[in-house]
Amino acid sequence: MLLTAKGGIMEEKNIPDIVVGRLPLYLRALQQMVQAGGKLTSSQELAERLGVSAAQIRKDLSQFGEFGKQGTGYNVKYLLETIRRILHVDRDWDVVMVGAGELGSAVARYRGFTDRGFTIKMIFDSDPAKVGQVIGGYTILDSAEMGKLISEHGIQMAMLTVPASEAQAVTDRLVKAGIKAILNYAPITINVPEGVHIQYIDPALHLQRMAYYIHPV
Amino acid sequence: MLLTAKGGIMEEKNIPDIVVGRLPLYLRALQQMVQAGGKLTSSQELAERLGVSAAQIRKDLSQFGEFGKQGTGYNVKYLLETIRRILHVDRDWDVVMVGAGELGSAVARYRGFTDRGFTIKMIFDSDPAKVGQVIGGYTILDSAEMGKLISEHGIQMAMLTVPASEAQAVTDRLVKAGIKAILNYAPITINVPEGVHIQYIDPALHLQRMAYYIHPV
Repeated sequence: MLLTAKGGIMEEKNIPDIVVGRLPLYLRALQQMVQAGGKLTSSQELAERLGVSAAQIRKDLSQFGEFGKQGTGYNVKYLLETIRRILHVDRDWDVVMVGAGELGSAVARYRGFTDRGFTIKMIFDSDPAKVGQVIGGYTILDSAEMGKLISEHGIQMAMLTVPASEAQAVTDRLVKAGIKAILNYAPITINVPEGVHIQYIDPALHLQRMAYYIHPV
Repeated sequence: MLLTAKGGIMEEKNIPDIVVGRLPLYLRALQQMVQAGGKLTSSQELAERLGVSAAQIRKDLSQFGEFGKQGTGYNVKYLLETIRRILHVDRDWDVVMVGAGELGSAVARYRGFTDRGFTIKMIFDSDPAKVGQVIGGYTILDSAEMGKLISEHGIQMAMLTVPASEAQAVTDRLVKAGIKAILNYAPITINVPEGVHIQYIDPALHLQRMAYYIHPV
């Protein structure tokens, strides 16, 4: 069940995936507004910040109830808390990371997780030379222990920073251990069974998407 | 103008941004098929690989002409080349990177750019201790020279791996120098003028999007 913006219970409904994909962007903009001391915002202000049309923002947000009256704007904190609840990030999720190379180290030191709903709990690597070393405050664990530790701690989210050649095999082990969501940094499409979610971080995909819109000089 | 799949000229039409966003994923899957020696594929096979429905794939691809006959499947190489042309990645784009910290170093060493249409041409940092050092084969350049060098070389794409506090100021300088597309790794929303494209790499956004679909144990 979802809570409506007014705090009541409304029937669980499927929010289109495209809208779900925009909610984290709204959340990030709202968090920046709160940090800057902002109390009220408007679909116009959000639109300018995010490069989405104001009409789109009003339509997206109207799915969750009434957030503001015409002309008075949205209450920033209230909207922030509601979107957090809708996305299930009003709680903290434990995440494991697999792959402690240079990219894994950089991601482990990234400061943007903790205040946005996520805690890196364990970092694994299969390289005996890396196991036991410390990166970003974490002691690298042996990936032989991965399945057991994930199951024991009931962890459901993973980030994958292993080479492309290992990504599918590691994914299969993660899924078996109970992982339900994988953020994959390896530049390869991976297969997961139904009910397991996957997202890709692949800079070339983003560059290709933007290349469509620009033209050679 | 766009070339149709049959090689003819068709009127330029606006492909919906959502479809443009899926084309790089199709491209990646098709490149993997070619590497594996695949010659023909189907909307079903692509659907399984990508977690998109076969109907969606047929609908997306039908916008660009006829790629295959009912029952015979798509010619992998032909489809690959056509999507490359549509996305303008049948040529090579020069890209600059700003920020040579740990994340910048990891991205600079990423192997997934060169065979997908992009070459990192220059890496800049403002830290005098970093300028002149070599990472991933690149000598780090002084970001004081950034505007001049970007203009001189007519570079239009940039990757931003600077701290969040510097991201907007660096962006303003990049735009002034002629950059038209920015891939931003800093966890902050930045403003760009109309006609400049921006994409974000922010792992927390992807984790939040997936958190919607999973439930606490």
